[in-house]
Amino acid sequence: MEHTLPHTISLLSRTPAALDALLRDLPEAWTLRNEGENSWSAFDVVGHLIHGERTDWIPRARIILQFGETKAFEPFDRWAQERESQGKSLGQLLDEFARLRSENLGELHALNLRQEELERRGRHPALGPVTLSQLLATWATHDLTHIHQISRIMAHQYREAVGPWNAYLGVLQCAGHSAP
Amino acid sequence: MEHTLPHTISLLSRTPAALDALLRDLPEAWTLRNEGENSWSAFDVVGHLIHGERTDWIPRARIILQFGETKAFEPFDRWAQERESQGKSLGQLLDEFARLRSENLGELHALNLRQEELERRGRHPALGPVTLSQLLATWATHDLTHIHQISRIMAHQYREAVGPWNAYLGVLQCAGHSAP
Repeated sequence: MEHTLPHTISLLSRTPAALDALLRDLPEAWTLRNEGENSWSAFDVVGHLIHGERTDWIPRARIILQFGETKAFEPFDRWAQERESQGKSLGQLLDEFARLRSENLGELHALNLRQEELERRGRHPALGPVTLSQLLATWATHDLTHIHQISRIMAHQYREAVGPWNAYLGVLQCAGHSAP
Repeated sequence: MEHTLPHTISLLSRTPAALDALLRDLPEAWTLRNEGENSWSAFDVVGHLIHGERTDWIPRARIILQFGETKAFEPFDRWAQERESQGKSLGQLLDEFARLRSENLGELHALNLRQEELERRGRHPALGPVTLSQLLATWATHDLTHIHQISRIMAHQYREAVGPWNAYLGVLQCAGHSAP
């Protein structure tokens, strides 16, 4: 389907509560384990989502609106959460993600974007020209890619425990294309 | 990690609220669309989870406890939700899933399973011998496989909308191994 701002907002506004319901107070055996070397845990993913709220989506939207294609976005740091999540609990990260998302949706609302602005182009440092509409659709789809990843990371912890059912569980066949 | 009953229960008890937070009152453009011919929408997946609560997990646990390997499980009907979800809203399905899951977790608690019973074997009609422990681990992992699938189905709706970011979004590379 086409990108529509209300559809994007409806999804963006639900992700923090969905992750909260899934992850808060879950045993650390689910939330702190990853899929092996250099992979992320659910805890890491929430930290990554927080970093996106701070540096990616709304800041990039502002760059498009202000500079168009004349100024490329800052590259996104995919490992920032290693520093930024240190010493925090998953509960604190979930709170922080919810707060930042809510603030960013407030900012998005305040931008009061018209169709003409949604079609405005910016410049991605690697991908080249992209529209504001594509950026906002990607914000929502990025949430989904990380819900997809979290479900896979958690399922991985029960890879042995399910025994022969392994063959029937699609998530256990997933090759990890959501990995960073 | 090994299967442990408290870890399994902690996950099983969170799935209904997580799906509720993600899906309730979301525009139907997200929840009723599928990935193309013969695939499922998020609405279909919730119906499938309901059918599992009714006919799969606790009924199979009872068969293992009562008959061991002498009686194979009933095969699971993967398309039952086509009949059973008819005329219902997604909100009704989410309510029904939450209610059945809560009842089933009550039944699981009442079984008061000891390690010896968790190791007891039953017989899957296609997979052969399986333990009660494996069945319960699969119940939790089956939730994750469908969260994985729902995030993929929804992301598919924005496949075009994200433009060149398509290449960076892992969920859009997922080949659909979670599909029924």
